[in-house]
Amino acid sequence: EAGPRVRRLLRRAAPESPRMTAKLAPALLPGLLSQLPRWSLDADAAAISRRLEFADFNEAFAFMARIALMAERRNHHPDWSNAYNVVDVTLSTHDAHGLTMKDIEMARFIDRIAAGTGASA
Amino acid sequence: EAGPRVRRLLRRAAPESPRMTAKLAPALLPGLLSQLPRWSLDADAAAISRRLEFADFNEAFAFMARIALMAERRNHHPDWSNAYNVVDVTLSTHDAHGLTMKDIEMARFIDRIAAGTGASA
Amino acid sequence: EAGPRVRRLLRRAAPESPRMTAKLAPALLPGLLSQLPRWSLDADAAAISRRLEFADFNEAFAFMARIALMAERRNHHPDWSNAYNVVDVTLSTHDAHGLTMKDIEMARFIDRIAAGTGASA
Amino acid sequence: EAGPRVRRLLRRAAPESPRMTAKLAPALLPGLLSQLPRWSLDADAAAISRRLEFADFNEAFAFMARIALMAERRNHHPDWSNAYNVVDVTLSTHDAHGLTMKDIEMARFIDRIAAGTGASA
Repeated sequence: EAGPRVRRLLRRAAPESPRMTAKLAPALLPGLLSQLPRWSLDADAAAISRRLEFADFNEAFAFMARIALMAERRNHHPDWSNAYNVVDVTLSTHDAHGLTMKDIEMARFIDRIAAGTGASA
Repeated sequence: EAGPRVRRLLRRAAPESPRMTAKLAPALLPGLLSQLPRWSLDADAAAISRRLEFADFNEAFAFMARIALMAERRNHHPDWSNAYNVVDVTLSTHDAHGLTMKDIEMARFIDRIAAGTGASA
Repeated sequence: EAGPRVRRLLRRAAPESPRMTAKLAPALLPGLLSQLPRWSLDADAAAISRRLEFADFNEAFAFMARIALMAERRNHHPDWSNAYNVVDVTLSTHDAHGLTMKDIEMARFIDRIAAGTGASA
Repeated sequence: EAGPRVRRLLRRAAPESPRMTAKLAPALLPGLLSQLPRWSLDADAAAISRRLEFADFNEAFAFMARIALMAERRNHHPDWSNAYNVVDVTLSTHDAHGLTMKDIEMARFIDRIAAGTGASA
């Protein structure tokens, strides 16, 4: 599934390098999203979304704190909402009018830390 | 505008006292909401909402941290969303299927700390 | 090790009940602290301390956010310090001039969430 | 007090530029610190410290959240401690074995946001 071009994209680049900030070609999306099965692509392929369910608000907000810190580090911020133990996250790169590797990397980070908490969905 | 019954309600009660957790009578809402001019009542009068705009994500998320801490203290949590410097907050008391004094008090807390930040809208 | 009096103490009580806020009798401390092996008792038996080491600042501060939220919920706050990935926590009940069940419960909460992160020390 | 070299240093540079990460020459410290009167220099001139007192824990921890977010953005983290409404911050650049412009800029950021809260000391 992850062909050589996808694997090359998944190697970390500097946050503001062209490889990170250029809109992803539609042909690359299936390969990249196959590794993010919990995320769904929106109708015009410009954003991806995932719901996370935690044990309680305490755990949900601490997760949000981790995302917030990473968002500042990478200068890439989610659109998100929270209701008690549920967090809905949408990722898109507004400057690129679509998805970039910044979104893919943030989705991978979110999956990785969610796996450590027992978040479901 | 704030008649004696509204003034009595606005005196602080213990978080789980009946005065805090009972659904507010419709006749009381105009008096209470007249003191919360930045909040709008939803169509079925079961929730109030306000948008806050901050200087940047740093200020917006620190505001969310204050609300999160207060939410745990009072065991009363908002439904909210964030996109960079904008935070949308909706308050309702799910157990009461509508608005209670817990929502009014949280709205007052939010207005008070937002006033200290230069948040607009 | 945990005799019947210790087991009774470990049953959850309301945060401000006398069982939670009374200074613990010295005879009870060994039984209670035997269940908190990562915590050390200070010289005058008035506080307990633990160091936690995380993968990075992101994980350390999210841990602090969880403790902060719980501190507000229980109205019981740690003395703590942080340097990058290290958090040092000291628990004591200032009103009681020593240790109470509020400290024991907070230590147990800290141990439980630290276990979920891979924090060491 | 702020001579031309200090004024030039105070102009913002990229976080990892040599102007930001080089240890400050001792001759420059008096000019730079004259603009940070609430900070004290430690005995070996390798760190600066400030105490901040807030209204309560809620306000203190939200301040810490702002610093944490900025620390990740600039990849420059404080050594700090907290006890309820009091936060003690120490700034130093460990890689440079002393003070750099990264510390001066973080101190200025802290002063600016503290001024917006009514923090004292």
